[in-house]
Amino acid sequence: MGHNQALSDSHEDLYPSRVSDTPRLIERCDPVFYGQHSDSGPLNQEQINFYEENGYLFFESLFSQEQVQRYRRELDALSSAPLVKEAPQTILEPESQEVRSIFDIHRTNELFKQLSQDERIVSMITQLLNSRVYIHQSRINYKPGFQGKEFYWHSDFETWHEEDGMPRMRAISCSITLTENNIYNGPLMLIPKSHKYFLCCAGKTPKDHYKSSLKKQEYGVPDNKNLERLVEMGGIVAPHGPAGSVIFFECNLMHGSNSNISPWPRSNIFFVYNSVENTLVQPYCGLSPRPTYIANREFIPI
Amino acid sequence: MGHNQALSDSHEDLYPSRVSDTPRLIERCDPVFYGQHSDSGPLNQEQINFYEENGYLFFESLFSQEQVQRYRRELDALSSAPLVKEAPQTILEPESQEVRSIFDIHRTNELFKQLSQDERIVSMITQLLNSRVYIHQSRINYKPGFQGKEFYWHSDFETWHEEDGMPRMRAISCSITLTENNIYNGPLMLIPKSHKYFLCCAGKTPKDHYKSSLKKQEYGVPDNKNLERLVEMGGIVAPHGPAGSVIFFECNLMHGSNSNISPWPRSNIFFVYNSVENTLVQPYCGLSPRPTYIANREFIPI
Repeated sequence: MGHNQALSDSHEDLYPSRVSDTPRLIERCDPVFYGQHSDSGPLNQEQINFYEENGYLFFESLFSQEQVQRYRRELDALSSAPLVKEAPQTILEPESQEVRSIFDIHRTNELFKQLSQDERIVSMITQLLNSRVYIHQSRINYKPGFQGKEFYWHSDFETWHEEDGMPRMRAISCSITLTENNIYNGPLMLIPKSHKYFLCCAGKTPKDHYKSSLKKQEYGVPDNKNLERLVEMGGIVAPHGPAGSVIFFECNLMHGSNSNISPWPRSNIFFVYNSVENTLVQPYCGLSPRPTYIANREFIPI
Repeated sequence: MGHNQALSDSHEDLYPSRVSDTPRLIERCDPVFYGQHSDSGPLNQEQINFYEENGYLFFESLFSQEQVQRYRRELDALSSAPLVKEAPQTILEPESQEVRSIFDIHRTNELFKQLSQDERIVSMITQLLNSRVYIHQSRINYKPGFQGKEFYWHSDFETWHEEDGMPRMRAISCSITLTENNIYNGPLMLIPKSHKYFLCCAGKTPKDHYKSSLKKQEYGVPDNKNLERLVEMGGIVAPHGPAGSVIFFECNLMHGSNSNISPWPRSNIFFVYNSVENTLVQPYCGLSPRPTYIANREFIPI
């Protein structure tokens, strides 16, 4: 099944990637803020403008230290449970075999399910996307101290479009930090404004790419020249603050993180909210969809 | 030849490492500031006190942008010269085969030789060590953008003592930055106050360790528990500033750096000044000395 062939006319591929040997930047066709004005939710006009322009929002200490403690205890319990370690939803560090990520926590864990429905978060996301939303993906990321590996630059949307069949850019990632993010422990780095462009990556997706890509990405990897252009336009930021802070970032915003040799681990909970008007179709790369614990296909609005 | 056996009584091993399976921290036996008072050189009492307490000093923009440009052009010329790339003094990145370090530049290159004798630098070093000094090691480090690898935590003195036979802690590393150091491009991280302790590492040095250790250190690696103790006592700092800034750090100060996925490379010139009263003896690990381009054995005072 070739590129595009699986798609009906209503799902034209506006963001082709991995179809050519030459990477290129194209302009985004979709809105960033889907609403009309600011009086429909908790975010004010200044915050909406900032999000539209830069592709992210940072809320320092949105959760209390007590709440954070509760989530961390749950994470610790999950990470050390033998059954969890063997579950397909769990990704281990290649060398140390420590837990790196656990997927689908909004369905398998009651506490994290509640958190994914946090009224403050959902109302802001709903305001930005101007529609009801469902969880496209959820996970906990654990980046250990001393040996935390880097995550190379990527646009989540590029992968979700190619490998999951997400048609348009109408989703927002929400990262809730469970540890302090500082400049030493490999914090999430964002390239502001990069969400305005789609980087068509070179190469072709191999079958079952997800089995290796969650450990080390080899396809859908941006090229140096276009990354340089994006950084020239937007710079790099690494929002940092205490545990319990929240970062929203637009699904197409370029992000990554350096390694972490500091003794301080970095953990976060990650929910992706997608508009119910942007539900998944067949993957644009032409292969079979990834497992539903990575790309949810139950489009149940929150 | 076993540990210590090669040493005369006058070279008792005050800092044994790699001799046991259990790592441990011991207190430093040597002074940090070897002088008596501050009126013997350019550093004032406040700077000397800071250095004694924290083990480092940072001089923002000690060199002008014009000087930096000249050194960078020289580095670019060296990095692309085929003969340089094949020389034993040149260390390549394991994967990309790009130049990572070039050793011995104070002997092989006239411009860098002059720089190593910079009057301002040498007078400050001489003041701190209260003796004439010679260059124990010199190199240029090039940490490319996008794919700069991490350097794990280490004390240089631990290696120089074990593998080069440097008897005591009476040497200072001087790093001259050739690119901006910022929080995104994997800057040098230091653990302040860690120079007051010697971390006896576990394990034993294999023969010809230097051939692999300059790419990836596997022996003389500090353990997590003692690193955590050091960081609890001193924290972590990453002095950052424009190209042309200079960092002095005590030979036993624990330091390292995270990877660098930013597009901005990080380059620096590195000179180690050792006291002429602390010249090398036989390596304390009992093996043959490393090549002289890594550990100079011509003790000619500057």
